[in-house]
Amino acid sequence: MLNRIGISLDEELLKQFDALIAQRGYSNRSEAVRDMIREELIKKEWSDTDSEKTQVGVAIMVYDHDAHDLSHKLTHLQHDSHDLIISTTHVHMDESNCLEVLLLRGKAKEIASLGNAITSTNGVKMGKLVPATTGERL
Amino acid sequence: MLNRIGISLDEELLKQFDALIAQRGYSNRSEAVRDMIREELIKKEWSDTDSEKTQVGVAIMVYDHDAHDLSHKLTHLQHDSHDLIISTTHVHMDESNCLEVLLLRGKAKEIASLGNAITSTNGVKMGKLVPATTGERL
Amino acid sequence: MLNRIGISLDEELLKQFDALIAQRGYSNRSEAVRDMIREELIKKEWSDTDSEKTQVGVAIMVYDHDAHDLSHKLTHLQHDSHDLIISTTHVHMDESNCLEVLLLRGKAKEIASLGNAITSTNGVKMGKLVPATTGERL
Amino acid sequence: MLNRIGISLDEELLKQFDALIAQRGYSNRSEAVRDMIREELIKKEWSDTDSEKTQVGVAIMVYDHDAHDLSHKLTHLQHDSHDLIISTTHVHMDESNCLEVLLLRGKAKEIASLGNAITSTNGVKMGKLVPATTGERL
Repeated sequence: MLNRIGISLDEELLKQFDALIAQRGYSNRSEAVRDMIREELIKKEWSDTDSEKTQVGVAIMVYDHDAHDLSHKLTHLQHDSHDLIISTTHVHMDESNCLEVLLLRGKAKEIASLGNAITSTNGVKMGKLVPATTGERL
Repeated sequence: MLNRIGISLDEELLKQFDALIAQRGYSNRSEAVRDMIREELIKKEWSDTDSEKTQVGVAIMVYDHDAHDLSHKLTHLQHDSHDLIISTTHVHMDESNCLEVLLLRGKAKEIASLGNAITSTNGVKMGKLVPATTGERL
Repeated sequence: MLNRIGISLDEELLKQFDALIAQRGYSNRSEAVRDMIREELIKKEWSDTDSEKTQVGVAIMVYDHDAHDLSHKLTHLQHDSHDLIISTTHVHMDESNCLEVLLLRGKAKEIASLGNAITSTNGVKMGKLVPATTGERL
Repeated sequence: MLNRIGISLDEELLKQFDALIAQRGYSNRSEAVRDMIREELIKKEWSDTDSEKTQVGVAIMVYDHDAHDLSHKLTHLQHDSHDLIISTTHVHMDESNCLEVLLLRGKAKEIASLGNAITSTNGVKMGKLVPATTGERL
């Protein structure tokens, strides 16, 4: 069910808001406000690391597949947490560098723990866990 | 002049928004939305490092005043940029640690440059430059 | 070629550093320090939005495929920038919600512009562009 | 007591690290590495919101003193938490806008709660709580 709420703000602030969202490609204010709200909600959800709720995350890593027997180690790591991993995409960036992206679903704690394990692996040049959302109730 | 705009959003998203802002102490939605908008505008303003507009920033540093002749060095640094510094507050945290907070006004580039100089000084344990705003037009 | 540099730090700070990286799963200090350095370098690379260098980014979006003819719109958007998109992974989260992750390669400005277009599309619940790296020289 | 640890890294990564810290004004690598370590430690300390340890924070606010009887309200708010506030600095930015900076010491939870109360007050244009540190053991 769609609700409509009224927001009051100074003319000058409104003008600046309109300029900002136009620049970001929004065609209406409601979507821009909803996006800001959702972003805050996702941040809040993930700040509760003990939550039992199902979360979604995206792990991004860049590594040199030749170094340290890395492909092998990372494959191992992933199999140990295979129930968390929805899918993996792998891109050969150049002769040595790989970009690998894992879509993850599970408890915040478990997702974070896999993220840490990947990032701290010797030879992983960049490792980042990005909090996402199931989209439910948003 | 006060304007009133209508924002449409799903009942479920609205319910979660209301819960979030209640927890953060807001007594009405307008103020919460205005705060999100202002935050985006301040971020945007500061992302333009070449701007000639007057900005406001807060530099925070924690240091051991005994180490490396630090008090002396930091005083020097501040005098070199005295036209940027509105005021300085100093707190003696314990026998050795100091907290010092500088309120700064000037071009983004100049403020950032002073922030870098402070942070990189040997013995400064924490140095952080926080973008703020003059409040004009917000 | 591998270099070895010496870093001096207080015993107490070292103790805390060791505890921190143990908790994050690092087996040696060098890798932890290298990761912190790389993170700063990636941040710096992306802060130069006018750079002509090839960058890598990951766009993450969660949306309701039923809403607003979204699947159709997003497919259009992606085809308009097909030369930026290395690959797309799509997950059906539940009956209505989708998670879609795009691996992107191009100039920072172009990647950011596609990220904005996705995020601002009506009905995209979460849209985020994550700066990554080609891994070159890191 | 000063310790010295060895860090090994690729020549290319070292070259880029040196360029980065030169640009930020560091005169030696040790201080740059120590700063990165301390930043991580401060982040970690503050992520434990239930900690009973004494923390330090800086609250920054920009507001229009004419609006909503704000000066009065904010003074009240501060007196209610007077035991948390080490000192307050106030700057008259222009005819209507004020910058006020509070140095805070207390438990993370208490500091955060005061930060929320300030930010959510009607008429506060910018409210931000910045985690700092006592400097102990860093």
